[in-house]
Amino acid sequence: MPDMNGAQALIRTLVACGVDTCFANPGTSEMHFIAALDDVPEMRGILMLFEGVATGAADGYARMAEKPAATLLHLGPGLGNGLANLHNARKANIPIVNIVGDHATYHARYDALLQSDIATVARNVSTWIETVERPEDTGSAAASAVAAAAGAPGQVATLILPADACWLTGGVVAAPQTPPARKIVDKDVIEGIAKRLLSGEPSLLFLGGSAMRADGLAAAGRIVAATGVSLLAETFPARVERGAGIQPIPKLAYFAEGAIEQLADFRHLVLVDARSPVSFFAYPDKPSDLVPTGCEVQTLAADGDDAIAALEALADAVDAADQCETLAPASRPERPTGPLTPDSIGQALGALLPENAIVSEEAATSGLSLGLHTAGAPAHDWLTLTGGAIGQAMPVATGAAVACPDRKVVCLQADGGAMYTIQALWTQAREGLDITTVIFNNRSYAILNIELSRVGAKTGGTKAKEMLDLSRPDMDFVSIAQGLGVPATRATTAEEFTTQLEKALATSGPVLIEAMIPGIG
Amino acid sequence: MPDMNGAQALIRTLVACGVDTCFANPGTSEMHFIAALDDVPEMRGILMLFEGVATGAADGYARMAEKPAATLLHLGPGLGNGLANLHNARKANIPIVNIVGDHATYHARYDALLQSDIATVARNVSTWIETVERPEDTGSAAASAVAAAAGAPGQVATLILPADACWLTGGVVAAPQTPPARKIVDKDVIEGIAKRLLSGEPSLLFLGGSAMRADGLAAAGRIVAATGVSLLAETFPARVERGAGIQPIPKLAYFAEGAIEQLADFRHLVLVDARSPVSFFAYPDKPSDLVPTGCEVQTLAADGDDAIAALEALADAVDAADQCETLAPASRPERPTGPLTPDSIGQALGALLPENAIVSEEAATSGLSLGLHTAGAPAHDWLTLTGGAIGQAMPVATGAAVACPDRKVVCLQADGGAMYTIQALWTQAREGLDITTVIFNNRSYAILNIELSRVGAKTGGTKAKEMLDLSRPDMDFVSIAQGLGVPATRATTAEEFTTQLEKALATSGPVLIEAMIPGIG
Repeated sequence: MPDMNGAQALIRTLVACGVDTCFANPGTSEMHFIAALDDVPEMRGILMLFEGVATGAADGYARMAEKPAATLLHLGPGLGNGLANLHNARKANIPIVNIVGDHATYHARYDALLQSDIATVARNVSTWIETVERPEDTGSAAASAVAAAAGAPGQVATLILPADACWLTGGVVAAPQTPPARKIVDKDVIEGIAKRLLSGEPSLLFLGGSAMRADGLAAAGRIVAATGVSLLAETFPARVERGAGIQPIPKLAYFAEGAIEQLADFRHLVLVDARSPVSFFAYPDKPSDLVPTGCEVQTLAADGDDAIAALEALADAVDAADQCETLAPASRPERPTGPLTPDSIGQALGALLPENAIVSEEAATSGLSLGLHTAGAPAHDWLTLTGGAIGQAMPVATGAAVACPDRKVVCLQADGGAMYTIQALWTQAREGLDITTVIFNNRSYAILNIELSRVGAKTGGTKAKEMLDLSRPDMDFVSIAQGLGVPATRATTAEEFTTQLEKALATSGPVLIEAMIPGIG
Repeated sequence: MPDMNGAQALIRTLVACGVDTCFANPGTSEMHFIAALDDVPEMRGILMLFEGVATGAADGYARMAEKPAATLLHLGPGLGNGLANLHNARKANIPIVNIVGDHATYHARYDALLQSDIATVARNVSTWIETVERPEDTGSAAASAVAAAAGAPGQVATLILPADACWLTGGVVAAPQTPPARKIVDKDVIEGIAKRLLSGEPSLLFLGGSAMRADGLAAAGRIVAATGVSLLAETFPARVERGAGIQPIPKLAYFAEGAIEQLADFRHLVLVDARSPVSFFAYPDKPSDLVPTGCEVQTLAADGDDAIAALEALADAVDAADQCETLAPASRPERPTGPLTPDSIGQALGALLPENAIVSEEAATSGLSLGLHTAGAPAHDWLTLTGGAIGQAMPVATGAAVACPDRKVVCLQADGGAMYTIQALWTQAREGLDITTVIFNNRSYAILNIELSRVGAKTGGTKAKEMLDLSRPDMDFVSIAQGLGVPATRATTAEEFTTQLEKALATSGPVLIEAMIPGIG
């Protein structure tokens, strides 16, 4: 194709590199990219109504597909709208390839209304940033972006694409590049840590990131059995395999007081693709660093290391049994009855969650017992809010459902967070994605009602309380969901919820259940 | 108050500087600010569900109140979510004081999940950026931020506020600073331009920004009458006073082809707080710079100059009559009948718009004839999309209604743009704001259907068309609005629309009308 334009070369290169899904919210500067979608049937374009949904969906897609999707965003403001979920992705090393359209190269100097410095907008979330100035370079830049994103550790790569680099001919498809592989951890490191774990002093394996898959957890379970060390996971892992037949792992508490208690007795803390535990926020007169005094921190596997291989090598080094014997047994709670609460929702979920489900969870204060009730449910994946910027779970569910069309996705979303990226529902309806969304409607930023006193502020007055309150007016998520094309029902008792959940899980396609739970605050 | 904390000093200083409204979407790091709201009754806190609504509302507030409001945003991701509407504000020199909460100063080094480089996120939209490290400095920083924002030209000032600077005592209320005043344009400049306008060569006064108020337009009308020059406004002025009794002014066309035609015959172009006309986007084989060859561009008043005084001085210098004699006559179209179209919506608006209304318009392709039909309606303000980042009109309407509780606000919003900041409706309901929102529902990014061919892309194929289409599923804005607490109706004929609009305008409080208009594309 001697007359291929830059956009065509770019899309063909993405496909050649395995990136065949693009979550898009385009504008005029992206019209040649959009036109080129019809020239490359292998590329799937999925329209979103808001960029934060696109970036969050790319995140959920990558967590499940284990390869990046592309986003298509409209200049600096479009990237800005996608920034919060890119922040979340960055914090968990999730690979994403952002394609950000820009004005034609020669148009920039006129400082038209949509002109801005896109690279600066990208800086915080993206270490790989490149502007392609010529159609000849779109292919090679795309191949570099994919390799940068997909390499170990994963990252957000941002390719800035001026409109004329798209529309001019001269495009060249580039060959895929080999992304940096995960590094194998040195034997010496493993043997040193093995010795420490065998010392008999109270030790903790602290797992996160890539370690949280069934194989990594099984290796950790073998180490625990052989050495008596404890096992704990970071509070917000990107993807955990869990449920019946998988080694279970408790999580570090969100609130620092609980975390300090969990960590108090350890003399050794071994990090496995996790960062040394710190408080989520700072609080007056409370420590930020949660590692107890006198506890030594060592790293078994850092970002970009092969954490599972390191755990397996460590298991062998401590002479662990060949098999993990502490896998979670299959067990489901009874169907709940009575008042609808976060706890009874957890029970219903534990009773009904189908095998191989994907759970995208941002239930905030409503999420505390969800893990407990689902611990013995059939094996499933659990995705969490990785960077603290709320409004991630619904987009992540959207992307996960695109990546895994044969698996049921369950999205557990608090009401406050739902309203940052509620537009995800429309894309779920449009694409017929198999997602059951549960909105925990307590009509409050409940977490802030708790935090207001925890940060040491005097008990809030009327005005302060009002700023944490989501009633007046009460939101009606059934109505909102229906307006966005997703069938929805409301549950006010545990029985109603369980029946509605059962029906939703038996349905193919998006459904939303608004769970009316008690307010806090 | 010797034991005032940093947050209290900051809020008291804002109030002392005239900033008494805060559009907030807070998180844990802002809890001391929130608690302090109860200590300062003069500060009004208004809760938004999404930061883009907060920043857009601050914009609309400032356009009408002629002074800045504050926003309260949660760390880097919160600022990120507010970035698109801050971009819009920046492009129109709208004053806004962003207060962005951050982790406690000593917590930053732990790189907790919500840690990011907030100043970098702010860079593109904000030239004034300051991080306050100590409670002793929150007051003085707030006073500087207000002066920077409110000075001429207006700007977005971003104050980054670590949590410990809020919660520690030692806060000091600072005195207001005098912001930079608008500069008076040199006599020589005015006399030079007067001479040029009197030369008889075809000349154009090109007005924007602060010139677009009744007084500025009246002075421009006097100049036109005295010299025969033409009058034209920038395409997207922040605030125009218009209607019966005000000098009318046509606008530069959005599409470059139309704009080129409007400008073709002029030999002199005089900029009055407007930038030299450029194409909104670049298109293959079309010019970016819209000034015709051989046309000389001169600046009467730049950003930060007193444009109205300059126009009045220029009117005197060309010996214009004392009064503007070309004010728009009062005239309303008939109530429309028949099919519901953007045109019949414009007629209904022209027939019914109440005196002193504020119109916030982002109707995109549906907006072309709205100005025509409302030209003779009672005097009103018209606010437009100033930076090209869609999703501005509903937040701007929200802020304008807060600034002017005694005026009716009418928000004219295209369906695509509505979905970026739809959360504005909830705040409108919560605050009982007197806003009638009209959604132009054509089930399409109609502008992109036009642009797809204009940019020279071959007529889009099936996949391309799909990326511009907002049907499948059709959104139901009545349902969405009701879910957010705003009463809503749907109109499918001109008669229905007119009746519904009449009723909405007679109601106090928020109402939404979903106008079902023909699709494009």
